[in-house]
Amino acid sequence: MTLRKFMLRTIILQNKYRNYVPVVWSSTRSYEDDNDKRDRYKKYGGAAAAALLGSVLIGTAIRETMDSKKVNTVKVHKIENLKLEAGGMRPDLPTFRADEVSKHDTNGSFWVTYKHGVYDITKFLPSHPGGEQILNAGGLSVEPFWNVYGNHKTEEVFELLETFRIGNLHDDDVVDHSDEELWAKEPARDARLLVRTRRPFNAETPPQHQIAHFDTPNELFFVRQHMPVPELEASSHKLRISIEQGGRSTSRDFSLEDLDKFPQSQLSAALMCAGNRRSEMNKEVKPAKGVGWSGGAVSNALWSGVYLRDVLLHCGVDVDDVEGKHVIFQGSDVDATGANFSTSIPLAQALAADARVLLATRMNGRALPPDHGRPLRAVVPGAPAVRSVKWLEAVTVSERESPSHWHQKDYRSFNASVDWASADFAGAPPVYGMPVTSAVCEPQNGARAPVRGGRVLVRGYAYSGGGAKVVRVDVSPDGGRTWLAARPTHAAGDSPGRHYAWTLWACEVPVQPGQDEMEVWVKATDSNMNTQPERFAHIWNIRGILGNAYHKVTFKLQH
Amino acid sequence: MTLRKFMLRTIILQNKYRNYVPVVWSSTRSYEDDNDKRDRYKKYGGAAAAALLGSVLIGTAIRETMDSKKVNTVKVHKIENLKLEAGGMRPDLPTFRADEVSKHDTNGSFWVTYKHGVYDITKFLPSHPGGEQILNAGGLSVEPFWNVYGNHKTEEVFELLETFRIGNLHDDDVVDHSDEELWAKEPARDARLLVRTRRPFNAETPPQHQIAHFDTPNELFFVRQHMPVPELEASSHKLRISIEQGGRSTSRDFSLEDLDKFPQSQLSAALMCAGNRRSEMNKEVKPAKGVGWSGGAVSNALWSGVYLRDVLLHCGVDVDDVEGKHVIFQGSDVDATGANFSTSIPLAQALAADARVLLATRMNGRALPPDHGRPLRAVVPGAPAVRSVKWLEAVTVSERESPSHWHQKDYRSFNASVDWASADFAGAPPVYGMPVTSAVCEPQNGARAPVRGGRVLVRGYAYSGGGAKVVRVDVSPDGGRTWLAARPTHAAGDSPGRHYAWTLWACEVPVQPGQDEMEVWVKATDSNMNTQPERFAHIWNIRGILGNAYHKVTFKLQH
Repeated sequence: MTLRKFMLRTIILQNKYRNYVPVVWSSTRSYEDDNDKRDRYKKYGGAAAAALLGSVLIGTAIRETMDSKKVNTVKVHKIENLKLEAGGMRPDLPTFRADEVSKHDTNGSFWVTYKHGVYDITKFLPSHPGGEQILNAGGLSVEPFWNVYGNHKTEEVFELLETFRIGNLHDDDVVDHSDEELWAKEPARDARLLVRTRRPFNAETPPQHQIAHFDTPNELFFVRQHMPVPELEASSHKLRISIEQGGRSTSRDFSLEDLDKFPQSQLSAALMCAGNRRSEMNKEVKPAKGVGWSGGAVSNALWSGVYLRDVLLHCGVDVDDVEGKHVIFQGSDVDATGANFSTSIPLAQALAADARVLLATRMNGRALPPDHGRPLRAVVPGAPAVRSVKWLEAVTVSERESPSHWHQKDYRSFNASVDWASADFAGAPPVYGMPVTSAVCEPQNGARAPVRGGRVLVRGYAYSGGGAKVVRVDVSPDGGRTWLAARPTHAAGDSPGRHYAWTLWACEVPVQPGQDEMEVWVKATDSNMNTQPERFAHIWNIRGILGNAYHKVTFKLQH
Repeated sequence: MTLRKFMLRTIILQNKYRNYVPVVWSSTRSYEDDNDKRDRYKKYGGAAAAALLGSVLIGTAIRETMDSKKVNTVKVHKIENLKLEAGGMRPDLPTFRADEVSKHDTNGSFWVTYKHGVYDITKFLPSHPGGEQILNAGGLSVEPFWNVYGNHKTEEVFELLETFRIGNLHDDDVVDHSDEELWAKEPARDARLLVRTRRPFNAETPPQHQIAHFDTPNELFFVRQHMPVPELEASSHKLRISIEQGGRSTSRDFSLEDLDKFPQSQLSAALMCAGNRRSEMNKEVKPAKGVGWSGGAVSNALWSGVYLRDVLLHCGVDVDDVEGKHVIFQGSDVDATGANFSTSIPLAQALAADARVLLATRMNGRALPPDHGRPLRAVVPGAPAVRSVKWLEAVTVSERESPSHWHQKDYRSFNASVDWASADFAGAPPVYGMPVTSAVCEPQNGARAPVRGGRVLVRGYAYSGGGAKVVRVDVSPDGGRTWLAARPTHAAGDSPGRHYAWTLWACEVPVQPGQDEMEVWVKATDSNMNTQPERFAHIWNIRGILGNAYHKVTFKLQH
């Protein structure tokens, strides 16, 4: 992409997602993990608009950011130094409270606000291209309206608006409307989910619901979004399969009806966010970057669809020519730069008969809910959930891994001594499989647990990726001095090397007479005889992923 | 098998392997781990012969032993109470020293010994069926000769011999010839192997040779035998493939020539004894039963042969009917009860295209050496080496796991609190995969390591089973406070989910000024992101297998 083309694209994107631009610019990472920074930017109010007007400068900065390894090239002060317009603070003008502004809502005196800007547009009303619709905004912010009528969001309109500027809206009265457009179509969610972030929506399955069902009900399945949920129609959805070979690319589009013609399969598989249990890692060692998941970023479902392998072979992919090749999955979810979500897995993993990678349309017997990829998603069992791309619109067989920042700058494996300055993302192994882990779901930390017959019932889940089955779960009530064998309460059948479901377990742990508190440790062993590390110290990593140390829970005993 | 038939078989087998019988009878485990008990039995001298004559009683005892879960039903005193003959002590007779016996080596006075027995067979000489050959044994033990001319070892001959008994050989002069027959045909071995037990032969690849070659030279490949090495002819060797289904069994024999007609494949795979690094586990926690391996019970080779999958499919095995089925491998090596070595893997694992189970005839481009299964062995990559059955003569698809004691009573997974009394072997998961592990090969514990440019070079291997590749090796010079990334020096290409070779690595570890000693820790992470436990405490188990804690080595620094 030439610089010129890039800047043009920047301007277009700024218009589309203008309120998000500064946040995303601040980092090549996605913004959801960075609430502090996001809040800081919001305080600057007009920075978004300023960025619009200063798009050449910012565009160049973005480019520098993208080309370099530093993730924070575009700093706040750069944006501050820009000429702030279209809603920025104007120290030279008086400040109004919202109730004062609201009085000016008639043809005779018609004020509106935009972020910190207060505008008297009385004289403009007659020439408003949209006619009298504008009257609805009298005495109010135009922003919610413009979120719907996005044609306002052009450089010309913002310039024009600033010509009517008469003052600043009081800080306390500035309402953040910035998200409304992007998030307006988010699906309804079950109130029982444990919300970690709202925008994008990231929420855990509550522990008591994890152990209540082998297949987590769809509405309780944990949700991990990077962006707003796209709204897609099953009837018109197309999956483009592209095969790149020696600089050439051939593509073919499949409707869901086309995909249905391949053999239908079902797969019981857990999906787990690579950052599951990050909060424990943060607490035991030091904070790592990412959503503060407890142990609820894993659920299990019965997925239905067709095997990606079948579709790729149908498209002429050579099963014997996999070395160094990748399958890139692209979702319909788009970030603020206009980039679709994308990540990849090795082609060998996609084609392995045992890997059972699905193009799934159904989840627990029902159409995929919007939060889980309606109408089509990849399910890459045994891999971190990020590889199971939702709202799947393109699959590309390529000689390169996905170039997206989600793939290149995240979900990679580092040792505990690597920091952000020393992290070599290009050289670090991408995470394509999940290690064995386990967690206590009941009792929870700090809860009161009933003692019956001298024992307390401890329940939880265990899981291992890469096709391995959990074959043993051990529980210790005394800091590892003795270990009790937990019994599986729910587990899928034996399919050596192709086992992708979790295992639910229970253990009746003996209580000592007079004991009023207990710390239990749990660890699982999988069919490759891998087991969990005892503590987080040596597996800590900058992204806080793969936190599979023993789960340690302390609770009160109720005799 | 009826009791009558069993006893008959017992007698026949006792004749064949008579000197081993008491040792094996003492336990349903194989004897090589039990040197103490073996020595104790040897002291009883004639016990083997006694056992022969008391075969009805002993046969019953064997049967009881096999049917019960107790491993020590047949005790020493039972054998003592038998009437000892054919070389047993005869308190009623005088004792001779060997030099006295050796004088009687002519036609005029011809004595021989057999264990504790001294015999004057002067009158027997003319009627000896073997003619004058017998003269070679004048004044000596007949045992080494009979080990070669096994036709002597019949009940009749022993009875006849005892009729010539004149005394006892002095304890100090009794030479143990008992092994000679069984071990007479053991192959020549490379003197550089680190021998742990001689009979059966168990020996490690020396660490400096592990890191010197990606494919360990055949003569340096670690050796782990359960029994004497059988001598088999490639030209006449047959592999019997049997398929059991609903009580019926169909069989088909394949010569090596027949097998050669299937597609030929090559596979770079490490084999690792499940007990590798047991000595560390013993030292750090408490002794477990088994060969005292250091880290040398793993080597890598390029195996050539045909896929078991292809042969089984050719024989009509249904790839979709695998649940609960097993593939039993039987070797030609026979224990003292006459049982062939046998173990099994799940049928699903044998049929999985990615599992790449080989029927191998070649190792590093040469015919399999006798110690490694000549002329045919299974190679079950990623599994503990015990599943890669050598001298393979039968493969059976069965609804049951192998009933052998090697399979039923060994290589199973227990937690650290299970002891021999509480071990439920039937309920414990068999070990079909190997966890991620790593070891420092140089410098060795206690060695002097040269410091060059402020650094010391640390080298070793890393490996993970189940098709996972090692993606990261971390070395810590300071007890886990900091971790350095080791660099792979030799590794096979990427084959996600079907990677079975080891990885050799090196790390230049910085040395502090004035530092004269260093303890390094090493841990590996595999492509499923599993890593090693920090210490052995929580993975210790009664059999001392799967010891994959961090390898910790202390050495002197030579500035």
